[in-house]
Amino acid sequence: MSAAPSPVDPRVLAAAVASALAEDVGSGDITTSACVPADMTACGSIIAREPGVVSGIYVCREVFAQLDSSLAFEALLPEGADFASDTAVARIDGLARPILTGERVALNFLQRLCGIATLTRTYARALEGTSCRLLDTRKTTPGLRAFEKAAVRAGGGGNHRFALYDGFLIKDNHIAAAGSISAAVSAARAVAAPTAAIEVEVQSFAQLDDALAASADVIMLDNFTPEQVSEAVRRIAGRARTEASGGVSLDTLRAYAEAGVDFISVGRLTHSAPTIDLNLELAAHVRA
Amino acid sequence: MSAAPSPVDPRVLAAAVASALAEDVGSGDITTSACVPADMTACGSIIAREPGVVSGIYVCREVFAQLDSSLAFEALLPEGADFASDTAVARIDGLARPILTGERVALNFLQRLCGIATLTRTYARALEGTSCRLLDTRKTTPGLRAFEKAAVRAGGGGNHRFALYDGFLIKDNHIAAAGSISAAVSAARAVAAPTAAIEVEVQSFAQLDDALAASADVIMLDNFTPEQVSEAVRRIAGRARTEASGGVSLDTLRAYAEAGVDFISVGRLTHSAPTIDLNLELAAHVRA
Amino acid sequence: MSAAPSPVDPRVLAAAVASALAEDVGSGDITTSACVPADMTACGSIIAREPGVVSGIYVCREVFAQLDSSLAFEALLPEGADFASDTAVARIDGLARPILTGERVALNFLQRLCGIATLTRTYARALEGTSCRLLDTRKTTPGLRAFEKAAVRAGGGGNHRFALYDGFLIKDNHIAAAGSISAAVSAARAVAAPTAAIEVEVQSFAQLDDALAASADVIMLDNFTPEQVSEAVRRIAGRARTEASGGVSLDTLRAYAEAGVDFISVGRLTHSAPTIDLNLELAAHVRA
Amino acid sequence: MSAAPSPVDPRVLAAAVASALAEDVGSGDITTSACVPADMTACGSIIAREPGVVSGIYVCREVFAQLDSSLAFEALLPEGADFASDTAVARIDGLARPILTGERVALNFLQRLCGIATLTRTYARALEGTSCRLLDTRKTTPGLRAFEKAAVRAGGGGNHRFALYDGFLIKDNHIAAAGSISAAVSAARAVAAPTAAIEVEVQSFAQLDDALAASADVIMLDNFTPEQVSEAVRRIAGRARTEASGGVSLDTLRAYAEAGVDFISVGRLTHSAPTIDLNLELAAHVRA
Amino acid sequence: MSAAPSPVDPRVLAAAVASALAEDVGSGDITTSACVPADMTACGSIIAREPGVVSGIYVCREVFAQLDSSLAFEALLPEGADFASDTAVARIDGLARPILTGERVALNFLQRLCGIATLTRTYARALEGTSCRLLDTRKTTPGLRAFEKAAVRAGGGGNHRFALYDGFLIKDNHIAAAGSISAAVSAARAVAAPTAAIEVEVQSFAQLDDALAASADVIMLDNFTPEQVSEAVRRIAGRARTEASGGVSLDTLRAYAEAGVDFISVGRLTHSAPTIDLNLELAAHVRA
Amino acid sequence: MSAAPSPVDPRVLAAAVASALAEDVGSGDITTSACVPADMTACGSIIAREPGVVSGIYVCREVFAQLDSSLAFEALLPEGADFASDTAVARIDGLARPILTGERVALNFLQRLCGIATLTRTYARALEGTSCRLLDTRKTTPGLRAFEKAAVRAGGGGNHRFALYDGFLIKDNHIAAAGSISAAVSAARAVAAPTAAIEVEVQSFAQLDDALAASADVIMLDNFTPEQVSEAVRRIAGRARTEASGGVSLDTLRAYAEAGVDFISVGRLTHSAPTIDLNLELAAHVRA
Repeated sequence: MSAAPSPVDPRVLAAAVASALAEDVGSGDITTSACVPADMTACGSIIAREPGVVSGIYVCREVFAQLDSSLAFEALLPEGADFASDTAVARIDGLARPILTGERVALNFLQRLCGIATLTRTYARALEGTSCRLLDTRKTTPGLRAFEKAAVRAGGGGNHRFALYDGFLIKDNHIAAAGSISAAVSAARAVAAPTAAIEVEVQSFAQLDDALAASADVIMLDNFTPEQVSEAVRRIAGRARTEASGGVSLDTLRAYAEAGVDFISVGRLTHSAPTIDLNLELAAHVRA
Repeated sequence: MSAAPSPVDPRVLAAAVASALAEDVGSGDITTSACVPADMTACGSIIAREPGVVSGIYVCREVFAQLDSSLAFEALLPEGADFASDTAVARIDGLARPILTGERVALNFLQRLCGIATLTRTYARALEGTSCRLLDTRKTTPGLRAFEKAAVRAGGGGNHRFALYDGFLIKDNHIAAAGSISAAVSAARAVAAPTAAIEVEVQSFAQLDDALAASADVIMLDNFTPEQVSEAVRRIAGRARTEASGGVSLDTLRAYAEAGVDFISVGRLTHSAPTIDLNLELAAHVRA
Repeated sequence: MSAAPSPVDPRVLAAAVASALAEDVGSGDITTSACVPADMTACGSIIAREPGVVSGIYVCREVFAQLDSSLAFEALLPEGADFASDTAVARIDGLARPILTGERVALNFLQRLCGIATLTRTYARALEGTSCRLLDTRKTTPGLRAFEKAAVRAGGGGNHRFALYDGFLIKDNHIAAAGSISAAVSAARAVAAPTAAIEVEVQSFAQLDDALAASADVIMLDNFTPEQVSEAVRRIAGRARTEASGGVSLDTLRAYAEAGVDFISVGRLTHSAPTIDLNLELAAHVRA
Repeated sequence: MSAAPSPVDPRVLAAAVASALAEDVGSGDITTSACVPADMTACGSIIAREPGVVSGIYVCREVFAQLDSSLAFEALLPEGADFASDTAVARIDGLARPILTGERVALNFLQRLCGIATLTRTYARALEGTSCRLLDTRKTTPGLRAFEKAAVRAGGGGNHRFALYDGFLIKDNHIAAAGSISAAVSAARAVAAPTAAIEVEVQSFAQLDDALAASADVIMLDNFTPEQVSEAVRRIAGRARTEASGGVSLDTLRAYAEAGVDFISVGRLTHSAPTIDLNLELAAHVRA
Repeated sequence: MSAAPSPVDPRVLAAAVASALAEDVGSGDITTSACVPADMTACGSIIAREPGVVSGIYVCREVFAQLDSSLAFEALLPEGADFASDTAVARIDGLARPILTGERVALNFLQRLCGIATLTRTYARALEGTSCRLLDTRKTTPGLRAFEKAAVRAGGGGNHRFALYDGFLIKDNHIAAAGSISAAVSAARAVAAPTAAIEVEVQSFAQLDDALAASADVIMLDNFTPEQVSEAVRRIAGRARTEASGGVSLDTLRAYAEAGVDFISVGRLTHSAPTIDLNLELAAHVRA
Repeated sequence: MSAAPSPVDPRVLAAAVASALAEDVGSGDITTSACVPADMTACGSIIAREPGVVSGIYVCREVFAQLDSSLAFEALLPEGADFASDTAVARIDGLARPILTGERVALNFLQRLCGIATLTRTYARALEGTSCRLLDTRKTTPGLRAFEKAAVRAGGGGNHRFALYDGFLIKDNHIAAAGSISAAVSAARAVAAPTAAIEVEVQSFAQLDDALAASADVIMLDNFTPEQVSEAVRRIAGRARTEASGGVSLDTLRAYAEAGVDFISVGRLTHSAPTIDLNLELAAHVRA
């Protein structure tokens, strides 16, 4: 079976891994070079020590490929799969040195990404049966956004705009600077490409009415209660898509969805997901 | 008062921030460009929404400096200071556009780094009055190691080796590959620079005796109980420095220290520190 | 007067200019080094040899600043200004060597960008008084897109999506691959961020009806005549924004606009704009 | 048949294509990812919509290779071949996604480079039977010089110096700075490597005499009429090579050549060649 | 036989070679392109013109691989082997052009690295039978440190710390700045990772006593005579490792070793090794 | 007095120094950070320990500027000046830490470059009073060519072509590949820019006659004796410039020049110049 395509642009993947290896390996893994014979082979398994959801095995593949293109790497589970505790999620066969050298970098990526996918799945499950989509935010680790957004997808969530360059989201400071919601939306509309929708964050029903009057394409209801969201959705009546954001916990998530919003965005998915404990077990043997 | 020197190599700092800005801003902040007049000025305050320890304001300074070198940035607290909830930790004055554009990248760094410093302080305080030093590990975010290790220092911890290239740490797989602890230590010693100490991770008293016989400079006691650590320290009797690692929680930390180890390393400081909630409040005004 | 902000991300600008200087100057301007005394000063004027519209003086500023940060550079006209033949558009004062060395790179940028701004203005003028916006396309020079899109804005046009990453535009091959317009729009909608609008290119009225049924946000009418556009706009009746594309010439441009489309996109603005003839006149004098 | 070697340094080619893909694809082709199944295959043909001369198919090969190294790419015509309208010039087979994603970048390069080769051929044909060589200039697109100079060669022209670092060309400003033609030539000669010839641009017969007296290796006759060129060539009598430059149109080109110059350089070949219309036709089919 | 692993990090190797090729080949080898048919093949041998020790053939392999991955390159001797005059050390088979183009860059690396390995062997041989290790210093060519340190290893020497980041070496200026040896050692110890040993350079017996009192792990005896070294080793009595440095020549080397130091470091190994004369002999033949 | 302009392209200078600092300083100078107070200032002098010729102080300036832009750096002698033993050649004032950290990198550059300038001056002096120019070759340190060629100029020599891209030099392998000297020269002439002269290396009088017949612009006499050179110059009779190369020592240099060649090239200037011993003396004092 050939490798599944990476959920992240291969050039972004290659650069992030190269940078991580430069950081952790740099001029060389001095302990491994000294203690492990150059021709010793080994086979390693990456084992999850607690249950979770897979994301990032494709990054581990790249880590080991950059260290030694002759290593055989096999993902044992696809991106997005659930795993139980003590499950092997990937195998690496080949020279022992690069396997040992890449272990920490591979796990540092994987623990974080599985953590995000796992937390996202918990939230996503709470929305099952509703038509509401769970979204991430831009509250990601600097340098790892593409990976963390892929982990959210692996867990069953969707991605909000990637960055400041690919979506209009008018917030309180933009409104204040432009003078009014109507002025801000007009200013954005005047330069927006046809492929851009304009979203406005509102903090009150008065602002919501302004956003509707300004023909915003999407209205973000910031820190509304589920009841307020219900009322807002009723008032909007299909004239704009809706998003709830701020103060949404796992406990209240479904209530928000049932209040009728199209999207709920949760920063916690990326900035506060607990890491998943994984390690690499190695069986080494001298090359015959 | 001039800016304190950065606790991270300025070139590493510049590169990490440039990369984070490329990720989040890329071809431009389209909302801010559309809605905020080019000559509008503003003054922003970064406010902590919960108590914690400062680390990373120097990164925020770099973020805003790269976006607009004419912004005035003032750190209101030094690296390592404690802050209460609702404390302003930094101020930025100047054009409104770059302040808005840099907000998220600055906070993404700061929330994580303050989180690490804050958790580290809690652990470090538990060791006060002992001669034991709290250390981090290599379980850091890929690409951010220098920053996270600086955050550990800000919180009162120390840094273990930075990477695979700057320290010998012989673990189980190295021992297996070399054939014995004695063979592994000899192999390392044969290539080690005078400035390198050789550390061996042991999982039993038998291994500990081997490490002593091999004249290891440092012995890492892996997953030993505090009682076992006491016994180990007694047996070592000053012939090597000692480090406890694995399975150390905030509850057991002091017991380990009192058992007499020189160092305790805790992966959790960097891989699982909760983020600190901070945001940026802005007062904008059109340039007269 | 301080310099106006660059219409292109300063990091993109710096990188493109550095790359152009590496290409043309490389290890040094051997003729100038040999023939021009190191301390000779000069003042240069960039003169247009035919009428046009300014775009790209900010690039020239960067060219000379990278070569010698002590050169004084003054833009004599703002981005977007009209100029007559034989108008000076910028002045440079300082050491003669970097002025001579930078001349060709500066002009190579400027001639192309003024050419695009000038052609765009001609098209934009033909739309004056209508509510239709003139747009560019992705048919730009590899490596110079940000500059060419800024030149379109300088000439009075607007920008379509910047790239493949920041907008959904479903074309014939996407429709064929997805199976139908409805399937393609659904697939896009399922992953689209709230801030994304979904545009579909249609080549017939049947496809147009499919796009409407699929709730496309924007419909691109590909190679429709002005009469067909009128009919399409009537049929759409405000349920989607509309764009005309393909086969639009300066002669037929206004007819398309009057047929009621919101946008007209014209590849020719960037891929076939004639360059504007400009040169650099220098008065040199030995430093006293 | 294996691929012909690239007429451009592979590292320059790889970097230019990587940069163009970063510009147009960046974090991903969101439309294609959403609408086209990951395992769908397709076969595409690049078709010329008007007659011309091939240059740049090797760039298209690199574009598709960087996007997906498993794509099969076949050039149907060699660099420099003439093609009629509606000719297929290249074929790509493999996964549909990378073919669609690379289409625009490949065509943006190809249209420009075929345009230059085609215009060059027209000029080169006008010189057939003479011993005069047609040359390009440094008036090229920033970042694309190596490609545009290769296109000139494909069309039958030759290349003048590549850049400021690899040839001495003494122009009016250098002469003014050095004090005289003789001083400028001496200054250049004093530092010139043995492999460098020294060319002087002259604007009058008096200057021509000075250049001869200074033993210039090459004399560029700037804005001379064909008759003046004849007279100049007579006067030079083989003591220097000669180049005509400035004000040479397709109509007067042959007259210049017949006046006896060794070289004619024409900026228009690169800065004003009309693009050639090409597109990519795709036949897609789901993988069995 | 597959290629032996590179003694230098493959990424460092790739970058150094790419940079050297950019420097020497840049936009192309114009002589070879003009004079050598594209399909001519050749076989080249790298021949030593004087006796020496191999280091750097792995760099030559990379040079030719980067120029043309289809070239067959065979190392005829392993890293560290002795060779007589007129020995072939490597062979390259394939297209003639890349072989000719890479010749100079390959030899520029090889001559220097063989020179270092050869000089090191001379010194190392003088220490045979002692337990003293010969070390290099940081007096290396900027940009080539990893290669030069590998050449020292090839010649039978060892490596001192790689750089300022991976070892504590307290010298006179650090002592002066800290106030005393004891203060300097304490300051270093307070931040040192467990894997770091602390070395102090002393210039007198008084300083030596201070270093011992401060529990320095290693003491560098700077510009001590062999007799002084003997006395110092006696006084240290195993409480610290010892290194002699400064003023050690090939003549006095063994006397220092016999005085009992653990290490002798010699800057001359890298900064003043005479180059070894090697050249490339080529047999070319047109492809049948 | 402002700093003299760098004899090396500032971008090349900045990149080489950044790379050297990354190599030697990397994540930080751990000894200096630990032992030297952050606010301690110092003043350092770079002192030559033997007589020589200055080259490379401009590199030292860049080293310290990159480490700390607030350091004051003063060159006490200009590029190319002679110095006696125990002469201070530069001064640095400012914070003690960056001065200590930059010392080794600065000296590693300076010792090598002064060495080349010094050896070159010895050779250049031997040619005084002749019209022959002393030249370097491409036998330079990979990555440092621009610096080493500048050092040759500082010592009074001249530069041969910089690289393979900027000069035609037809050697034995090119002649063999092309079939004859005449074929090789014709092939080169057919693609040479007007600014290129064509040089042919000859090893016999028969080849010399061929080169003359082929109208080579420059003839390199390879391994000719001074007497053979005399004869060759007579035979050439001004029809080509001449260069002697190979087997020229300091003893025979003047004889070659007096034999009438225009140029003598000497590889030894760059590949075997002994380094000059310099060090940095520091006076430190705590900031008041």
